[in-house]
Amino acid sequence: MEKTEGGITAPQGFSAAGVVANIRKKGRRDIALVFSEVECTAAAVYTKNKFRAAPLTVTADNLADGRAQALAVNSGIANACMGGQGLADAENMAVAAAEALGLEKSSVIVASTGLIGAPLPMERIRGGIAEAAAGLSRQGGHDAALAIMTTDTVEKELAFETELGGKKIVFGSMAKGSGMIHPDMATMLGFVTTDAAVSAQALQQALSDAVQDTFNMISVDGDTSTNDMVAVMANGKAGNEEITLDSGDYPAFREALFTICRETAIKIASDGEGATKLFEVRVKGAPAKDDARKAARAVSSSNLMKTAIFGEDANWGRAVTAAGYSGAEFDPMKTDVWIGDLKMAENGGGLVFDEDRAKEILEEKHIVLTIDFKSGSCSATAWSCDFSYDYVKINAGYRS
Amino acid sequence: MEKTEGGITAPQGFSAAGVVANIRKKGRRDIALVFSEVECTAAAVYTKNKFRAAPLTVTADNLADGRAQALAVNSGIANACMGGQGLADAENMAVAAAEALGLEKSSVIVASTGLIGAPLPMERIRGGIAEAAAGLSRQGGHDAALAIMTTDTVEKELAFETELGGKKIVFGSMAKGSGMIHPDMATMLGFVTTDAAVSAQALQQALSDAVQDTFNMISVDGDTSTNDMVAVMANGKAGNEEITLDSGDYPAFREALFTICRETAIKIASDGEGATKLFEVRVKGAPAKDDARKAARAVSSSNLMKTAIFGEDANWGRAVTAAGYSGAEFDPMKTDVWIGDLKMAENGGGLVFDEDRAKEILEEKHIVLTIDFKSGSCSATAWSCDFSYDYVKINAGYRS
Repeated sequence: MEKTEGGITAPQGFSAAGVVANIRKKGRRDIALVFSEVECTAAAVYTKNKFRAAPLTVTADNLADGRAQALAVNSGIANACMGGQGLADAENMAVAAAEALGLEKSSVIVASTGLIGAPLPMERIRGGIAEAAAGLSRQGGHDAALAIMTTDTVEKELAFETELGGKKIVFGSMAKGSGMIHPDMATMLGFVTTDAAVSAQALQQALSDAVQDTFNMISVDGDTSTNDMVAVMANGKAGNEEITLDSGDYPAFREALFTICRETAIKIASDGEGATKLFEVRVKGAPAKDDARKAARAVSSSNLMKTAIFGEDANWGRAVTAAGYSGAEFDPMKTDVWIGDLKMAENGGGLVFDEDRAKEILEEKHIVLTIDFKSGSCSATAWSCDFSYDYVKINAGYRS
Repeated sequence: MEKTEGGITAPQGFSAAGVVANIRKKGRRDIALVFSEVECTAAAVYTKNKFRAAPLTVTADNLADGRAQALAVNSGIANACMGGQGLADAENMAVAAAEALGLEKSSVIVASTGLIGAPLPMERIRGGIAEAAAGLSRQGGHDAALAIMTTDTVEKELAFETELGGKKIVFGSMAKGSGMIHPDMATMLGFVTTDAAVSAQALQQALSDAVQDTFNMISVDGDTSTNDMVAVMANGKAGNEEITLDSGDYPAFREALFTICRETAIKIASDGEGATKLFEVRVKGAPAKDDARKAARAVSSSNLMKTAIFGEDANWGRAVTAAGYSGAEFDPMKTDVWIGDLKMAENGGGLVFDEDRAKEILEEKHIVLTIDFKSGSCSATAWSCDFSYDYVKINAGYRS
C-alpha cells in the first residue's frame, strides 16, 4: 500500500466536481458530486446519534441493495432536525442528482453538513447539482474535497495504491470534519472510492471493521454529530477477480481499506477546530481490546489533557485521571506513562523526569503519549488534537 | 429550610481554621481544619475514578465505623498517583491532625486537592495542621473555605436552618472545585456539617441519595477527578431525637441535606474555570429518571453547547445533538426545546423564533435550557457553565 497523488477520483472510472451554489457564505464551493462510470458495490456506516439527520436515512434506504453510482454532498446546512421536510429535501436531493446523471434515485448517496435545524435551500441545491454534473472530470476530486468543508482549514483527500489478485488497485478518499467530532460507529463525512472489484458484503464487513479502529478513534470535542457517515464505493474497473469474504485476497483488501480510513481519520483529527498539534494516545498492555480503546479514547478526548498539550505542559496526571474514569479495566498500581520517549510515571507513581527534554518533545507538532497497563497484550490508538483559544472562538459564534 | 449566615461552622459545636503552610504559591491559605467539640456520625461518597487518590482510601478506612470528629484538608497538591508513599502521607496527615487535636487517627477525615503526581511536603503539612489546631474558632469557617480553593475564583460556603423534631437544626457547607469537574458518585471536595442528631446509616443513605441529583449533576469540563469526595458530619448538638431511617423526620432531614448539597453544587458549577454564566439544563417528559439524567448531563457538558452559551448564540441544534448521543431513550420526533421561555423547536423540528428576544435571554448570567421529550413523567436538572477563552488559558499552563 503506497501513497500516491490525488484523492477521491484517483481510482479508475471516477469523476467529480465541486461548485459554488451559495448555500455557504462568501461564494465558497458547497456542492460536491462524485460519479462512477459504472455501477459500484457500496457500503456505509452511520452515526449512532438518536437525532440521525435526514440524508443518512435516505442513503441507508438507497444502499439497501449494496449498490450506488454517485455521491451528492452539500455543506453549509446539515438538514438535521427538520422533521418530515428534512426527509423530503434529502429525497429530492437524490432525485436531482439522479436526473442530472441519468440514474435511478436509489443509485445516489446523499450527505449534508453544516448548521442543524435550518432548511435546505432546494433551488440552489438543484442548480448546484446540475452545474456539478455538467462539470464532472477526472481532475475534479480536489474541488469536491473543497466543497464539503465547513470549519475545516485544509481539504482532506488521499490516494493509495496496492496490488490485489495481480492487478493494481487504487483507493481514493475525501473527508470533512473539524468540530462536533467524536464519532460513534462512523465519523463526520468520509468517502472512499476504489477501482477494486469487491462484493457488497465483503465491502461492508471490511468498512465496519476498519472504522472501529480509525474513524471511531478520533475526537476533537466529544460531540457525536447527527450527520456522521462514512461511505465507500468500489467500481471494479481494476479488473481483479471479485473479492468476497471467502477470498484469499480479502484480508489484504481489508488491510488496504483500513489504511486509507486511518490516514483519512488522522487528517480530520489534525485539523480539529483550533488545533495546533496532532495528539496521539497509544494504550498497550490492556487485558482486552475494549479496555485499550476506552482508555485511549478517554485520554485523547480529555479537555484538561488537550489544554495541557496546547500549553506544552507535561501534565501526565491528567492522562491517568482520564484513563481512570474511562471505564477500562486495569490496575492503577501497574501503570506506566510516557510522553514521547520520556517516562513520566511507573507503577502508578510519578517519576522525576528531565523537564527540558519534556519541553522539547511537547514543542513538536505531533505528540505521542503512551500508557502501558502491563496487564495483558491488547492495544489501541486514538487521535485528537490540542485544545486552544481558537476552538472557543470558532464555536462561540458559529450560528451567527 | 432557610438560608442563614456563615458556612461550615454555622451549626453548633463546630470550629475551624484556614492557614498558610506554603504548599500553594503566593502565601495563600492552603490548610483547612474543621473540628467538632463532640464526636459526630459521618458519611461520605467518593470518586469512581480507578485512580482514587490516597486521602480517599484513608478516609474510607477511618469512616468505616460511621464516626468522625475532625476534617483536615490541604490544597496545592492532590496526593494522587503517588503509590505507597501517597498512602503513607495521607495516613500521616490524619495522624498529625489527631495528635494536634487529641483524637484517635480514625476520627479524622483527610482530603487533598491540587496537582496530581507530586509528593505532599509533609513538614509543611504538619506545621500547618498544628497552627490551624491552635487557631480553631467559631469564626474560622470562612478561612477554611478559602484554604481549600485552587483555581476557584470565589470561596464556596453556605448555611441553612430548618426545624426537625421540634428543634432548630443548622446545616453548614464548604466546597471547592472549578476544573476537572464532572463528578461520578461524588464531586470535587464538598463538606457539610450539621448539628442534627442522626444515625450514621441514615446520614449515609441521605447523602448517597442527595449526591445523585446534586453534585453528580454538575459538570465543568467532563473530567472526573481522582480526588472527588463529599463528606458530612452530624454532631447532634441541636438536641433533637436521633433521626434513623425509620424516623418520621427522616424524609425532612433528607430533603434538607438535599437542598444544601444542591445549592453548594450550583456554586461549583457557577465558578467553573473561565465561567461567565451558569448554564442550567432541565429535561422533562422522559420515560425514566435515568434517561432524563443522561440527557441533561450530556447537554450541559457539551463543549459545543457551552461555547455557544459563551457566545450568546441560540444554537439549540447542539442541545438536541447532545441529547441524541447521551444514551437516553426518547423519540426525537416528539422533542421540544426552549431557551428561557422562548420555544426553539417543536416535535424535533426548528421553529422560527424572535432572535432579539433570544439575544436578551442569552445575555443573562443564568441561562436555562429546557427539553421536553413528551414521552413520560420523569425529569432531571443539570448545571454547568459556559466555555470561554479563560478555560483554555487556565488549563494550558496549570502545572507550570
